[in-house]
Amino acid sequence: MISISSSRQPASAILLIHCPDSKGIVATVSEFIYKNNGNITNLDQHVDIKRQIFFMRVEWELDNFIIPDNKIGEYFDTLIAKKFDMQWQLHFSHEVPRMALFVSKQPHCLYDILSRWRSLELEVEIPLIISNHPELEPVARQFGIDFHWFEINGGNKQEQEQVQLRLLAERQVEFIVLARYMQILSAAFIGHYKNRIINIHHSFLPAFPGAKPYHSAFERGVKVIGATSHYATEELDAGPIIAQDIIRVSHADSVEDLIRKGRDLEKVILSRSIWHHVQRQILVYQNQTVVFS
Amino acid sequence: MISISSSRQPASAILLIHCPDSKGIVATVSEFIYKNNGNITNLDQHVDIKRQIFFMRVEWELDNFIIPDNKIGEYFDTLIAKKFDMQWQLHFSHEVPRMALFVSKQPHCLYDILSRWRSLELEVEIPLIISNHPELEPVARQFGIDFHWFEINGGNKQEQEQVQLRLLAERQVEFIVLARYMQILSAAFIGHYKNRIINIHHSFLPAFPGAKPYHSAFERGVKVIGATSHYATEELDAGPIIAQDIIRVSHADSVEDLIRKGRDLEKVILSRSIWHHVQRQILVYQNQTVVFS
Amino acid sequence: MISISSSRQPASAILLIHCPDSKGIVATVSEFIYKNNGNITNLDQHVDIKRQIFFMRVEWELDNFIIPDNKIGEYFDTLIAKKFDMQWQLHFSHEVPRMALFVSKQPHCLYDILSRWRSLELEVEIPLIISNHPELEPVARQFGIDFHWFEINGGNKQEQEQVQLRLLAERQVEFIVLARYMQILSAAFIGHYKNRIINIHHSFLPAFPGAKPYHSAFERGVKVIGATSHYATEELDAGPIIAQDIIRVSHADSVEDLIRKGRDLEKVILSRSIWHHVQRQILVYQNQTVVFS
Amino acid sequence: MISISSSRQPASAILLIHCPDSKGIVATVSEFIYKNNGNITNLDQHVDIKRQIFFMRVEWELDNFIIPDNKIGEYFDTLIAKKFDMQWQLHFSHEVPRMALFVSKQPHCLYDILSRWRSLELEVEIPLIISNHPELEPVARQFGIDFHWFEINGGNKQEQEQVQLRLLAERQVEFIVLARYMQILSAAFIGHYKNRIINIHHSFLPAFPGAKPYHSAFERGVKVIGATSHYATEELDAGPIIAQDIIRVSHADSVEDLIRKGRDLEKVILSRSIWHHVQRQILVYQNQTVVFS
Repeated sequence: MISISSSRQPASAILLIHCPDSKGIVATVSEFIYKNNGNITNLDQHVDIKRQIFFMRVEWELDNFIIPDNKIGEYFDTLIAKKFDMQWQLHFSHEVPRMALFVSKQPHCLYDILSRWRSLELEVEIPLIISNHPELEPVARQFGIDFHWFEINGGNKQEQEQVQLRLLAERQVEFIVLARYMQILSAAFIGHYKNRIINIHHSFLPAFPGAKPYHSAFERGVKVIGATSHYATEELDAGPIIAQDIIRVSHADSVEDLIRKGRDLEKVILSRSIWHHVQRQILVYQNQTVVFS
Repeated sequence: MISISSSRQPASAILLIHCPDSKGIVATVSEFIYKNNGNITNLDQHVDIKRQIFFMRVEWELDNFIIPDNKIGEYFDTLIAKKFDMQWQLHFSHEVPRMALFVSKQPHCLYDILSRWRSLELEVEIPLIISNHPELEPVARQFGIDFHWFEINGGNKQEQEQVQLRLLAERQVEFIVLARYMQILSAAFIGHYKNRIINIHHSFLPAFPGAKPYHSAFERGVKVIGATSHYATEELDAGPIIAQDIIRVSHADSVEDLIRKGRDLEKVILSRSIWHHVQRQILVYQNQTVVFS
Repeated sequence: MISISSSRQPASAILLIHCPDSKGIVATVSEFIYKNNGNITNLDQHVDIKRQIFFMRVEWELDNFIIPDNKIGEYFDTLIAKKFDMQWQLHFSHEVPRMALFVSKQPHCLYDILSRWRSLELEVEIPLIISNHPELEPVARQFGIDFHWFEINGGNKQEQEQVQLRLLAERQVEFIVLARYMQILSAAFIGHYKNRIINIHHSFLPAFPGAKPYHSAFERGVKVIGATSHYATEELDAGPIIAQDIIRVSHADSVEDLIRKGRDLEKVILSRSIWHHVQRQILVYQNQTVVFS
Repeated sequence: MISISSSRQPASAILLIHCPDSKGIVATVSEFIYKNNGNITNLDQHVDIKRQIFFMRVEWELDNFIIPDNKIGEYFDTLIAKKFDMQWQLHFSHEVPRMALFVSKQPHCLYDILSRWRSLELEVEIPLIISNHPELEPVARQFGIDFHWFEINGGNKQEQEQVQLRLLAERQVEFIVLARYMQILSAAFIGHYKNRIINIHHSFLPAFPGAKPYHSAFERGVKVIGATSHYATEELDAGPIIAQDIIRVSHADSVEDLIRKGRDLEKVILSRSIWHHVQRQILVYQNQTVVFS
């Protein structure tokens, strides 16, 4: 089941590619689109000189494109991708991605995402919110979204994650946003949504990973605090970074001030990352992101 | 006379293009490079949807490129540019641009540029410094650069500009940087160096154009001050903007504090713009810039 | 009727002062507090050297303070303020200010404020939301706040404002926040809430005042866009600035991108200004603010 | 020997204080100044609530002050400091501090500091530059400053530091700036200049301490890079932080781009910290700074 957005017009295809660098990739891909009557509206490429890897995002209008939507992938793979040993993904601008939110007790990221969604800034479907605490159920209800409380204790985590995974599959969730979800996901769980779980960490990583980063920042006497969004990986707070930003603080700021100021960063950075993800602007390679924005 | 840089290796060609948007431009240009054995190391394109204009910057390695350097322009024009009604410029990474500096009394931008140049961060030749005041001659001498003082008074501006233009032509100056040059250039002068005169203005334009922007900012009680670099045009402080940035200020800052804090912005923004210009990353279209960086 | 906050402990008094500068003000005020058994937890002062005006914000714990709360103002005025020709305001940290929101059709600032309020980040009471359009009523209802729609047309503005003023008085509103209220208030209306109406304008003022600043910014080709919060005054977008910030944009951003990116700025800047106002950190003098933060 | 600045007028005294918090400190200190006919032009205080420590910076005009300059310290100590168990420093605005620069091979911070000094933005005396490499001697010569090259090898560091210390003492150096000095100072050396050695580290500490932070940042795929100035302490890159800032980077930036962009941060942050130090705005307490700016 794929939802169709009526507002994103005209429909376009988005191809994300990476492969070993060689001559002629841009020429070949753009010719493929051109000859089949596609109009490229956006093309970004990047060569990682050191690793000799070529990255590309190309978007073209599907109006009048000769190859039918459901055959583009097959044709591209046969005619081009194999030749250049490409890893590729194909997306369509009119498909609306299905996103699940994981939360704990803090509402600021949740509110921010839901208000962007409600005001149509963020075009996604949100079939459900999952939490390890009951506190935010009223927020979910306020916005009319299913809320599922999974109490996690010392012994039941694996079991609860199994139920969560079934639920996510049932609801056809494509990607997950950890909106200040204060519970570590197992490697097994993460493995099901590789590069599809966006987390926000409340520090400028790699500084202050793990618990209570604002307290650590305060103790260290830093003059800036930050927030970092990244794709969750097995190793905590070590996944590919999507976006980071900072805000200045001073000696006059208490830990509570840092927490308060940091919230603004967290919500903006997390929502910006969701935007990039939904716009299909992110490519992951060896624990780093290429963000074509 | 063209100076050749030994440090920028391997040599590459840079093509800057704009033309009415149509299908197949990327394919055609990249195929031109590919078929002649060029390896694209960088390609950026942008479509101004509203005006239907296509912009592109493409850079490729010249090693093994079939067309000789001095024929690339001709071939490209004949085979491709005419077909798409393109405006284009061709540059070579190993050519070192010749830059003149215009200054008045304030040394901070001058020092910043010269120290970047001396430490090889900025690969340009600086055949001369021109000033309407004698104060900065010692700085020029410190760095071993010719300094020319042109006193400008009510009556002699046109005449002095004529001498300046001759001098610039003699020294084969390609572009001019107004490093806090506090004298308005005539339209005639600017016409000789269209989109090749980089100015720094000490406000976030379009706020506070003209004289004494820090004083005006102070009077208005703003909480940020800015600096803006742009290509000089006939209309004062109204040319295409290259770069802008700001710094936060507060009620505790006096006009003198604004001036002091602003200097850091001015020099960083101006030098960043020179960098973009020298890297051939800037395209100008209808009083706006496309900066591919 | 004054609401009492239970969370802000211990209770403290906040005095905001400005007066002609002279020797001994700090000594006199701090001695007044000290001798009456108050413990100063915060003292900020600023001298506007040019205008020779002294500004001060001092906060002290009321626990054990000898003068009763309802007499502090009188005593201070008699014993000190008159001597130094002071303008002063006295506030108590445990009083919860009553804030009205004015909105039109755009929900992002409204959502941001309401979610901060609901999650207790912002300690205010919000007795009502006023709008010139009906669109945002569901948001008000979501958060359980009275929503009043006042249709404004060519002829009825004065009359509608009269009704609004009565309503605001009835509900004991202390200050007003224009959360993207797209309707100009009359000078008469503003006069009732001098320095108590916070507006957010979607540009870095004084650039781009008035309508459609993002469109103007796009046309000008700026490389940063901004947002400015200020107290509304009779002259449009010319009131004392409270806070400003910017975000970088590029040639690749459409007007729609500017609008989208700008929303994040607007809501953060507006909410930060409400915070300053509620914390009694702002002094206004001659169309400028002193923000002790 | 103390140099006297003629430009900083009128002369003022600056007192930096910290002590256990208690009632009446502000009242007592400001009364001391007031009763002796001093006019306070600036007063900042801060209470570290958690640790119950009071910090204060107060500046007053000496014109007409009853106590002679050379007796102020004694009187203050006797009458006030002892009572409150204060740590204090007294400075005079017309004293010009003597600063030594330590450099290695990279010139950007050195150039930046020297050009600010030469253009009188930075009012210090620079009796000498010390380096562990000979490369920057020409820069020192350009600005007419003594340059001392100390080759450091495996065995001679202690001995060389002894010679450096003697030289610094001879030249009456008050504080030291490590302007990208790539050599670790011994604990013994640092002990001689406690909280008087300003270092610039090219990362946002505590991320990426030690060698090659830009390379580590590149490997981690961060989206911001930073610079941090701090007072050098025995533990490497762990001293009290004075200032920090960041600049955004992207996947398109190579390590060389990070290094280039970082240079602008390093020089601005380092010079800003020197400014704070020279303005006597910094108090150090338990490995943190209070910067009254």
